Amino acid sequence: MELGVVGLGRMGANIVRRLQRAGHRCVVYDAHPEPVQALVKEGATGAGSLAELAKHLAAPRAVWVMVPAGPVTDRVVEDLAGVLDRGDVVIDGGNTYYHDDLRHQARLAEVGVDLVDCGTSGGVWGLERGYCLMVGGPDEQVQRLAPIFSALAPGVEAAPRTPGRSGEPSPEEQGWLHCGPCGAGHFVKMVHNGIEYGMMAAIAEGLNILKHADAGTQAGDADAETAPMERPELYRYRIDTAKVAEVWRRGSVIGSWLLDLTAQALFESPDLSDLAGRVSDSGEGRWTSIAAIEEGVPAPVLTAALYARFASRDLDNFANRVLSAMRRQFGGHQERPA
Amino acid sequence: MELGVVGLGRMGANIVRRLQRAGHRCVVYDAHPEPVQALVKEGATGAGSLAELAKHLAAPRAVWVMVPAGPVTDRVVEDLAGVLDRGDVVIDGGNTYYHDDLRHQARLAEVGVDLVDCGTSGGVWGLERGYCLMVGGPDEQVQRLAPIFSALAPGVEAAPRTPGRSGEPSPEEQGWLHCGPCGAGHFVKMVHNGIEYGMMAAIAEGLNILKHADAGTQAGDADAETAPMERPELYRYRIDTAKVAEVWRRGSVIGSWLLDLTAQALFESPDLSDLAGRVSDSGEGRWTSIAAIEEGVPAPVLTAALYARFASRDLDNFANRVLSAMRRQFGGHQERPA
Amino acid sequence: MELGVVGLGRMGANIVRRLQRAGHRCVVYDAHPEPVQALVKEGATGAGSLAELAKHLAAPRAVWVMVPAGPVTDRVVEDLAGVLDRGDVVIDGGNTYYHDDLRHQARLAEVGVDLVDCGTSGGVWGLERGYCLMVGGPDEQVQRLAPIFSALAPGVEAAPRTPGRSGEPSPEEQGWLHCGPCGAGHFVKMVHNGIEYGMMAAIAEGLNILKHADAGTQAGDADAETAPMERPELYRYRIDTAKVAEVWRRGSVIGSWLLDLTAQALFESPDLSDLAGRVSDSGEGRWTSIAAIEEGVPAPVLTAALYARFASRDLDNFANRVLSAMRRQFGGHQERPA
Amino acid sequence: MELGVVGLGRMGANIVRRLQRAGHRCVVYDAHPEPVQALVKEGATGAGSLAELAKHLAAPRAVWVMVPAGPVTDRVVEDLAGVLDRGDVVIDGGNTYYHDDLRHQARLAEVGVDLVDCGTSGGVWGLERGYCLMVGGPDEQVQRLAPIFSALAPGVEAAPRTPGRSGEPSPEEQGWLHCGPCGAGHFVKMVHNGIEYGMMAAIAEGLNILKHADAGTQAGDADAETAPMERPELYRYRIDTAKVAEVWRRGSVIGSWLLDLTAQALFESPDLSDLAGRVSDSGEGRWTSIAAIEEGVPAPVLTAALYARFASRDLDNFANRVLSAMRRQFGGHQERPA
Repeated sequence: MELGVVGLGRMGANIVRRLQRAGHRCVVYDAHPEPVQALVKEGATGAGSLAELAKHLAAPRAVWVMVPAGPVTDRVVEDLAGVLDRGDVVIDGGNTYYHDDLRHQARLAEVGVDLVDCGTSGGVWGLERGYCLMVGGPDEQVQRLAPIFSALAPGVEAAPRTPGRSGEPSPEEQGWLHCGPCGAGHFVKMVHNGIEYGMMAAIAEGLNILKHADAGTQAGDADAETAPMERPELYRYRIDTAKVAEVWRRGSVIGSWLLDLTAQALFESPDLSDLAGRVSDSGEGRWTSIAAIEEGVPAPVLTAALYARFASRDLDNFANRVLSAMRRQFGGHQERPA
Repeated sequence: MELGVVGLGRMGANIVRRLQRAGHRCVVYDAHPEPVQALVKEGATGAGSLAELAKHLAAPRAVWVMVPAGPVTDRVVEDLAGVLDRGDVVIDGGNTYYHDDLRHQARLAEVGVDLVDCGTSGGVWGLERGYCLMVGGPDEQVQRLAPIFSALAPGVEAAPRTPGRSGEPSPEEQGWLHCGPCGAGHFVKMVHNGIEYGMMAAIAEGLNILKHADAGTQAGDADAETAPMERPELYRYRIDTAKVAEVWRRGSVIGSWLLDLTAQALFESPDLSDLAGRVSDSGEGRWTSIAAIEEGVPAPVLTAALYARFASRDLDNFANRVLSAMRRQFGGHQERPA
Repeated sequence: MELGVVGLGRMGANIVRRLQRAGHRCVVYDAHPEPVQALVKEGATGAGSLAELAKHLAAPRAVWVMVPAGPVTDRVVEDLAGVLDRGDVVIDGGNTYYHDDLRHQARLAEVGVDLVDCGTSGGVWGLERGYCLMVGGPDEQVQRLAPIFSALAPGVEAAPRTPGRSGEPSPEEQGWLHCGPCGAGHFVKMVHNGIEYGMMAAIAEGLNILKHADAGTQAGDADAETAPMERPELYRYRIDTAKVAEVWRRGSVIGSWLLDLTAQALFESPDLSDLAGRVSDSGEGRWTSIAAIEEGVPAPVLTAALYARFASRDLDNFANRVLSAMRRQFGGHQERPA
Repeated sequence: MELGVVGLGRMGANIVRRLQRAGHRCVVYDAHPEPVQALVKEGATGAGSLAELAKHLAAPRAVWVMVPAGPVTDRVVEDLAGVLDRGDVVIDGGNTYYHDDLRHQARLAEVGVDLVDCGTSGGVWGLERGYCLMVGGPDEQVQRLAPIFSALAPGVEAAPRTPGRSGEPSPEEQGWLHCGPCGAGHFVKMVHNGIEYGMMAAIAEGLNILKHADAGTQAGDADAETAPMERPELYRYRIDTAKVAEVWRRGSVIGSWLLDLTAQALFESPDLSDLAGRVSDSGEGRWTSIAAIEEGVPAPVLTAALYARFASRDLDNFANRVLSAMRRQFGGHQERPA
């Protein structure tokens, strides 16, 4: 079928490519002309504005938006409200907060346009692997868009079928799912990323414990400010973490794509010495923890993973100075130099 | 080559089978005669005692022990010290604490026998998938046993090779690794299980947040003992967690074997209503957190996962009663009935 | 000075009493007539409606609202907007979310009325101990109300002066503080309660560890589903937690009012057997963690304390069943009965 | 009565002073002659060696050891075993791990000497405030030493009596408690310090949230690597944390000695700019978390507090680099510079 695509960054451009490979026709627009021209060479129809994009599409139109979440998405939604018509649909494939989906839905409804929110996982690998799609919105529009979702999803053959499942593969087996009404897609994607934070932290903490398995060999800190080890002889291992990450990829319980990537990163740079360890977070991890708190359910692992990222960027510094200050007050303890 | 195997439970019996499929010869012993007889029918040589097992093996012998960690392993090691000879090797393939490896090594060294510790991951699936093996011990013995480890490991084809790796696959690419001296194998396996706890909890917490995504639809708890939701309209989704687990299996960042198993479990029983939610822990998760603490490195995610299991078994109950008691003292708050 | 007080529950009635003891004149209103009558007997002027309350006060009026946060406060603010005049001030002394203060401020501003938000700590003990007051709002109104805040606050003599502070005690030394513009008072009170959750949990967890200091004496769980203790001989203490809480009250580093209350509760009921351990939370703990997340600063202790309360009410149950389900899938582990 | 005191650092010297003020006679020894001489001037009997110290005391002797935990205490206990006689008692008042108490007890038992372990809280303030004492050991020796413990403890008047307690104040009301057999005193002190870590962290995290209450005023990080704030207008407060700490000292629920010290530290240096925020830990916090894990009870708050200290010393760095490496692999994300 025919799809407009707005936003041709890393993700957007590859979505166009994967759709075109599957025989769909794309009309593409980006604030910068270069990515438009690049995709035109690959068979897409280029547009110089959203109005032009709308003209190149037959009604009822479907326009996939793939731009940064927040103000940029707000603006594109507002602009599309001005050029689309009753019965058209906007698919927001970005990392929009589901709170904003509800706002966007209301705005588009004023002009009779529907919103479908689509959480898109797959990163820079999606062109080859396909994208895992978590979709929210009205039934009719999601059904109409099924060929698009099918083309972008990895397909059932991307993993062995779950034992017991048989017959025609359901959408979720192909890698896309209609999760519920407006916002449900981004809600599920948000939690997916929350889980991602937790799984990443689990691997990272474990490798750090292995990295410090030689802690008992270090010259004794006879310092009163440091707890001595009870049995230093138990911590004399020098573990090759790159090899360990590799060995865990086959046959172990923790086999996972994140582990594959970790093994690759450590193979390329065993000490990761080109990195400082200032770990960014891009919103979904925060929103997942907020959702847990507002629902009243515990998420200690997911939130610990989030907080570790904040601490990696030294946002705990004032708290730590308060702690050192208390220790100085009650025990006369001075801070040890680094 | 030739291997004695002691302990023919779920894991031990399958190890024998996988070795025999690869052409190795096994002499088997178990405290119960039935599993011995079963494996004899499949081509193994049975033994009625450890002494008999030793007699059936040519020196230098190799004996794989696959019995419950703790007192049972202690006893088997002690008994083997009585029937093995200088140059023989005991492989402890169980979930032994690496502290105990050092003790066992010292005991066996008295009679000239070596210890190789081997963390074995793969559970009930290892017969088909192969086992991920994390090995500690002296170089010569580990080299001598390489054919055994190769036969048990999944083999390089079990996963795509890490980009950049080429040529003859290293042992870690086949699924087994010599991690270091005595105890290093179980140390790495311990941390593997610690990571497993963290990854499991990440998935479980995320699914719980999805399960409660309809928290805003519940009749308002106007009760002074419960925080009201600020925006209940944001929590009105009814998410099908079984379908979500399935969709995440293809193309998403959190694809993993644990997710595959979760999807299967939820497909079989979407509400998991046959389970109470009392989650056991079998030692390695505890030891991993203790190692982190003794090394002085933070492991907030792994430890949160461990503590959630303790709490699932109500081991937080007295603490919770103390909290309710304080609230009653300072604010006159009464506990809400369940 | 003269003050209207709306809401004569436990907190509101005692506030009136403490103000009257200090010579202030109170006009009181409550949705129920009984508490009005009770306070009239103690010298207050009763009102049968908010309109009547407004009539009994000379302009510019000051009305203290002490009703449950959320919809009830919303309604009282709306009703006061209808009976108050330009230049009057509403003081919200309840546990209102500071988000709502901004909304209330905007509504009252439409009729020229100011809002002062006042976080009030002290619980049922405030009548005797005084209340710790955290105030937000416009300078002029806060200054005008200073006599009220001074009368309610405990006064400088309630604690030894901080070394180095001298001269006329500042408001914060008396126990009340103008924290900033609208919402700042409730923001600081919110964080106060977040800290309270963390301190309470620290005490409760520690006492739980003491309660289980005899864990090594219990009949060995030889079960494969339970980790055996490495050194049970280290856990053979039977600690009297009521006595421990008492001894810590004098001279220790953790001396605190919360510990005083804990000692009292344990003295009255050493096993707290009349409590089930279902710990409520009343909002501020949640909001504190949400604030930390939105600010991007780590609050692992405060959030862990919050999540422990959720878990005490079994809101982790589905997550725990997912964990048990995974264990059954990969290892054939069955749940242990309670 | 008569007491030998070994180790005349900050704590040991003040213990001697407090005992002498109460009329007890002290024979003192330290590896350095200066503190011995200083105390001799204040009325103590000096000793140039442990043997001499023993000679100056009438049998059955009592010797209080106040030296750094670990190897130094080990050596002093060993040396005392050589100079004391059957019926004497050694009191270890330091921060010894209770595991070591059991070892020391066994060593001293060989020569008929008893061990009493005594957790001592009070820091540099104990001389004036008195010490909170948590005692383990045999009944007869603890009874014999009661006058010493009474003299060191703060006394019942140091805090209001718990409602309901009356008559002759029990030892725990005076500030000392016989907690149980050998090790029980240090066990209870260990948990006390674990609680201390948790309470300190609760205060520090809360103040950090207040410090960042202006996070919404900072120039928008339009960066794809940073989550934008949903409602920056909610985070525009500039809170004076020194004043807040002071106001909380009177009438609030979180009033505590640690808060008093925090208020003092922030009064002296509102930004704590002379501190780097590298927070030491001296053992008990680690041991408390290990005890929780070995007992199988959750201690999420206490352990989070411990891990925050590790992270303050950058011991999470490799884990953080692993996280950044994964993000780069799956999403092409580059680390943001500091």
